[in-house]
Amino acid sequence: MTTTTIQGSLIGTRSVTGGAGTVRGVDPRTNQAFGDEFSLLDSDQVDEATRLADEAFATYRSTDPETRAVFLESIAENLESVGTQVVETAQRETGLPEGRLSGELVRTANQLRLFATVARAGDYLGARIEPALPDRKPLPRPDLRQVKIPLGPVAVFGASNFPLAFSVAGGDTASALAAGCPVVFKAHNAHPATSRIVGQAIADAVISAGLPVGTFSLVYGAGKSVGQQLAADPRIKAIGFTGSRSGGVSLMETAAARTVPIPVYAEMSSINPVYVLPSAIRDNAGALAEGFVGSLNGSAGQLCTAPGLLWVPEGAEGDAFVDLVVEELSRVSGLPMLTEGICRSRVEGEKRIADVEGVELIARGHEGDTENAPAPTVYRTTAENFRARPELSDEVFGAFCLVITYSSEADLLQAVDSTEGQLTSTLHLDPEDAQDIRFAQDLVPAVQLTAGRVLFNAWPTGVDVGDAMVHGGPFPATSDGRSTSVGTLAIDRFLRPVVFQSTPEALLPQSLLDSNPWNLVRRVDGEFVLPENQ
Amino acid sequence: MTTTTIQGSLIGTRSVTGGAGTVRGVDPRTNQAFGDEFSLLDSDQVDEATRLADEAFATYRSTDPETRAVFLESIAENLESVGTQVVETAQRETGLPEGRLSGELVRTANQLRLFATVARAGDYLGARIEPALPDRKPLPRPDLRQVKIPLGPVAVFGASNFPLAFSVAGGDTASALAAGCPVVFKAHNAHPATSRIVGQAIADAVISAGLPVGTFSLVYGAGKSVGQQLAADPRIKAIGFTGSRSGGVSLMETAAARTVPIPVYAEMSSINPVYVLPSAIRDNAGALAEGFVGSLNGSAGQLCTAPGLLWVPEGAEGDAFVDLVVEELSRVSGLPMLTEGICRSRVEGEKRIADVEGVELIARGHEGDTENAPAPTVYRTTAENFRARPELSDEVFGAFCLVITYSSEADLLQAVDSTEGQLTSTLHLDPEDAQDIRFAQDLVPAVQLTAGRVLFNAWPTGVDVGDAMVHGGPFPATSDGRSTSVGTLAIDRFLRPVVFQSTPEALLPQSLLDSNPWNLVRRVDGEFVLPENQ
Repeated sequence: MTTTTIQGSLIGTRSVTGGAGTVRGVDPRTNQAFGDEFSLLDSDQVDEATRLADEAFATYRSTDPETRAVFLESIAENLESVGTQVVETAQRETGLPEGRLSGELVRTANQLRLFATVARAGDYLGARIEPALPDRKPLPRPDLRQVKIPLGPVAVFGASNFPLAFSVAGGDTASALAAGCPVVFKAHNAHPATSRIVGQAIADAVISAGLPVGTFSLVYGAGKSVGQQLAADPRIKAIGFTGSRSGGVSLMETAAARTVPIPVYAEMSSINPVYVLPSAIRDNAGALAEGFVGSLNGSAGQLCTAPGLLWVPEGAEGDAFVDLVVEELSRVSGLPMLTEGICRSRVEGEKRIADVEGVELIARGHEGDTENAPAPTVYRTTAENFRARPELSDEVFGAFCLVITYSSEADLLQAVDSTEGQLTSTLHLDPEDAQDIRFAQDLVPAVQLTAGRVLFNAWPTGVDVGDAMVHGGPFPATSDGRSTSVGTLAIDRFLRPVVFQSTPEALLPQSLLDSNPWNLVRRVDGEFVLPENQ
Repeated sequence: MTTTTIQGSLIGTRSVTGGAGTVRGVDPRTNQAFGDEFSLLDSDQVDEATRLADEAFATYRSTDPETRAVFLESIAENLESVGTQVVETAQRETGLPEGRLSGELVRTANQLRLFATVARAGDYLGARIEPALPDRKPLPRPDLRQVKIPLGPVAVFGASNFPLAFSVAGGDTASALAAGCPVVFKAHNAHPATSRIVGQAIADAVISAGLPVGTFSLVYGAGKSVGQQLAADPRIKAIGFTGSRSGGVSLMETAAARTVPIPVYAEMSSINPVYVLPSAIRDNAGALAEGFVGSLNGSAGQLCTAPGLLWVPEGAEGDAFVDLVVEELSRVSGLPMLTEGICRSRVEGEKRIADVEGVELIARGHEGDTENAPAPTVYRTTAENFRARPELSDEVFGAFCLVITYSSEADLLQAVDSTEGQLTSTLHLDPEDAQDIRFAQDLVPAVQLTAGRVLFNAWPTGVDVGDAMVHGGPFPATSDGRSTSVGTLAIDRFLRPVVFQSTPEALLPQSLLDSNPWNLVRRVDGEFVLPENQ
C-alpha cells in the first residue's frame, strides 16, 4: 500500500490543510492519477484567505515602485530556480510537451520582469497635475492632482491550457500585484502540483520581501463553489479569469448581482476567424496550408487563439489550397489534450458541428498514441449555410476547424458584420495585390470592431507579451473588451483614478509631489512632461 | 383657447413628432406648465434613432481629429449663439438662478472646446508601437501597433440638475462624440424646451460638418421605458447616465442581462462626507460655517457633490462651530427645487432621517417664497448612532445635512472604513497643525479608497473641468469607479484597445503610421515619444 502525502493550500504563505476532500494530478496521456493529494478548502478557510488579502492591502498598496518591482523579480527568480521541477510536473499533469512548457516558463518569468519594469516606470499611475490658477477668470482653479490607485484584493482563476503563463504566477497575477492589489489565486484542479510549486515560489518572495502575508494566497477548492464564493466576497474588488464561456458568464452574473458590483475580466471564447483572400494562395498555397495546420494542431489546438474558422475563396485556387490543407493534416497526429473532460467536450463539440446540415468532414489527421488524443479534423461548409446556422459559430476547444468557402467579397463583409467578439481576426493577402488591398481597406475597419487583435499574413496562435499587445476583444471573447489580459496595458484593469484637490504637501502621495521623487512621466496642464532621466 | 405648438424629437437631425403622448415644461416656482408641448416617441421611433446611429458609426468613427474637433467647436458656437434663449428657457424650466445658468452655459461650451482639444491632440488614442524585431531570440517579435477605437453608439441620459453641463450637449455627449461614438440622447422631461434648443444646436453642427445624420439624435419619451429600450438595444454599445441610484441600477441590470453586456457609466448617489478636524475650527470657525452653508444651500442643494455629512469634533470648540452653522443657516432661505417630485422626495427623505432615533433637528433656514422651496435643514447625531443605523447614509437630495459629532480619531477611521463609495470626501484642517496632519496621514489613505475626489480646506460643490478632474468614485457614487464623467479622462469610457500585427502600411490607421501624420504622442518600445511640435 502506497501512502500519499496530503498537501495544503497556501493561505497567506502558510500551508493549510483543507476540510473538503482532495484532488490529485492526472496524467492525461494515461488517465492515471499520480503524486500527492491536494486538499480542498472549505468556505471558512477560503474566507480566511480573503480576510488576509484585505488586511494586506493597506500595506501592499503603499509599497514604492522599487519594492514592488523587486518583489516581482524575486518571484521570477524563485520560479526559475525550480524551473526543471515545474516543467516536469506540468508536463505530467497537462500532457503538454517539454519544449512548449520550457518556453512557457521563460515567458512567465519574463512577464513578471516586464511588470517589474512597469511598476518601476510608473507610467501606469497616469499622474496628472493641474497647478492652482488663483487668478483665473471667472473662477480660480484649485490645485488638482490625479493618480490611479489599486482597486483592492483580486481573485484570479487560472486557465487549464497555460499551466504557467495563465496560471498561478501568470499574467493576471503579475499585473494585479504590479498594480498594488493582493491576489487570492484559485488553483486549477487540472494541475494542482504545478500550482503548488509556483505558489510556493510566490509565497517565498512575499516572505523575503517582508510583505504582509496576505499579499498572496493559493487556494484549492471545488471549482464552482469556491469561484462563486470569491466573486461574491465583499473584500474582493476585481476578478481575473481565463476559461470557458459558461464559467466566465457565471462569474459575471455573480459579480453584477453583488450589493457593490465589481469588474470581471474573463477571457472566454473565441474562434479566431482567418480570412484568406485570393492573392494569398496564388503563389503561396503550400506554405499557407502548412502554417495553418501547425497553428491548428499545436498544443492540441488548446489555445485561446487557435484558428477555428478558415474563410477560403470558392473556385479552383481555393479548392487547390483546401486540398493542400487536407494533405498536410493527413501527416499530423492528435496530441494529448489536457484532461479527459476537455477531450470529451472536444469530441462532443465536433459531433455537434458534424451533425449540422450542409457541413462535411474534409480532413482528418491521425489519432495520437496516448489517451485523450483525438485526431485533428477540418470540416467545410458554405458562407450561406454558415450565415443560416449560428450554432456553427460555437467554439470547439481543440484541434478543430471549419473551412467556409465564400463566393464574393460581400460574403466576407457580411460574415464579419455578424461575427461575435473575437480575440483575434486574421487576413491573408499579398500586400502587392492592388485588388485585395483595396478590398481589405473596406474589410479591416469592420474586422477591428469584432476583435482585439488583427493580424496579417501570420497565425493567431502565439501572443507576444509586450507594450502593444491586446489579448482581449468584445464579448464573448472577453467579458470586458476595454482591456487586455496580456501585455503591459493589463495593469489598467486593476486601477481607478482619484484626484487630490488643494492638498497639503504632507498629505500628497509621492507620485504627485512637485519634486517628482519617482521620476514619473506626468501630464502637467494637459501636456506630457518626461522626467529628466528619460 | 390658446393653441400650443407640438414639438418633435430630433431623429438624425430631422424633427419627428412622437406617437406616445406629450410633456410640457413646468415652472417649479409656480407648478405651472408653459410653452410648447413635446411629443414622446414610441418604441419604433426610438429604434429608428439607434438604427441611424449605428449607420452613422462607420463614417463618424473614421473622421480625422481636425474634423471631429471642428464639429465640437461648432456645437459650442451654435450653443453660444442661442445662449440668451437657452438660459431664459432653462431658468423657467428649472427655477435655477440666471447667474448659475449663465455660468453653466459657459462651462458647457468650454467643455465642448476642451474635448475638441482632446480630439485634436489624440493622446487619448494611446498609440503604442513595437516595431518588428526579426532577430529577437528565442522568437522574433512581429510588428505590433496598438490604438484605442470607439465602442459604438452611446445612449446618454441627462441629469435634471444640470440642464446644460450634464444634459444634451454636456460632458457625456462631448466625450462620446470626441471618442468617435454617435450619441442617442434621451431628453430629461424636466427641461424639454431647453433640451430642444440645445439639440438643434448639435443637429445644425452635424449638418454643417457634413456628418452622417445619425451622429446625434435627441429623443423624448417616457423615462423608464425608453431608457430600458436604449439599454437593451444591441446597437447601443455604452451608456452614460447621471441621476438617481434606482435609475442607474436599473440600467446596470438591463445592460448586464443583454446577450452582449455593455458598460454603463452611471453617476448616481453620493453624500460627500466632510471631516472637520479640530485645528480647522480653532481660529477659523466663522468662515468655515459660512462656507459650509453656502455649499449646502447653493442650487437648493441639488448638486451631486453637495455636503450631506459633516463630521465635527465633540466638545466646546465643536459645539461653538455647530452654533455658528445654526446661525448661518437661520439667515438663508430655501431656493426652488427643480420639480415638484424632487421637492417631494427631499421632504420625504428628511422625514425618514428625522424619524430615526437619536437624530435631532438643530438648524433650519427659511422656506423660500415660491413653490417647491423647502427650508434647508441640518440634523445631528453621534458617531455611534450613525454607525448603528445604515439608513442614515441614504442620500437626501437637496439642502439637507447630517452633522455627526465624533469623540476620537478612531471614530473617524471607523466611519471612513464603513462608508459607501462617494464622489468626494473633504478634510478640513490647519496644515500647520502637526497633530492633525499626522492623523490625516492615516486618514487620507483610507478616505481615497472610498472617493473619486479628496479635497482639503475647500467645499466639494463646484467641479473644475480639466485634465486632472475625477468626477467618479466607487459604487454607489457611480456604477463604475474606474472612470470619470467630468474632465478629459472621461473620453476613456468610450474606447477599447485593438492591436494590429504585421500590418501592410496601406491597411494601418493614420494614428499608427510611421510618419505619424497626426503628430501624436506615442509609446514606442515602451517609452513615450513626443511629436516634434510639442
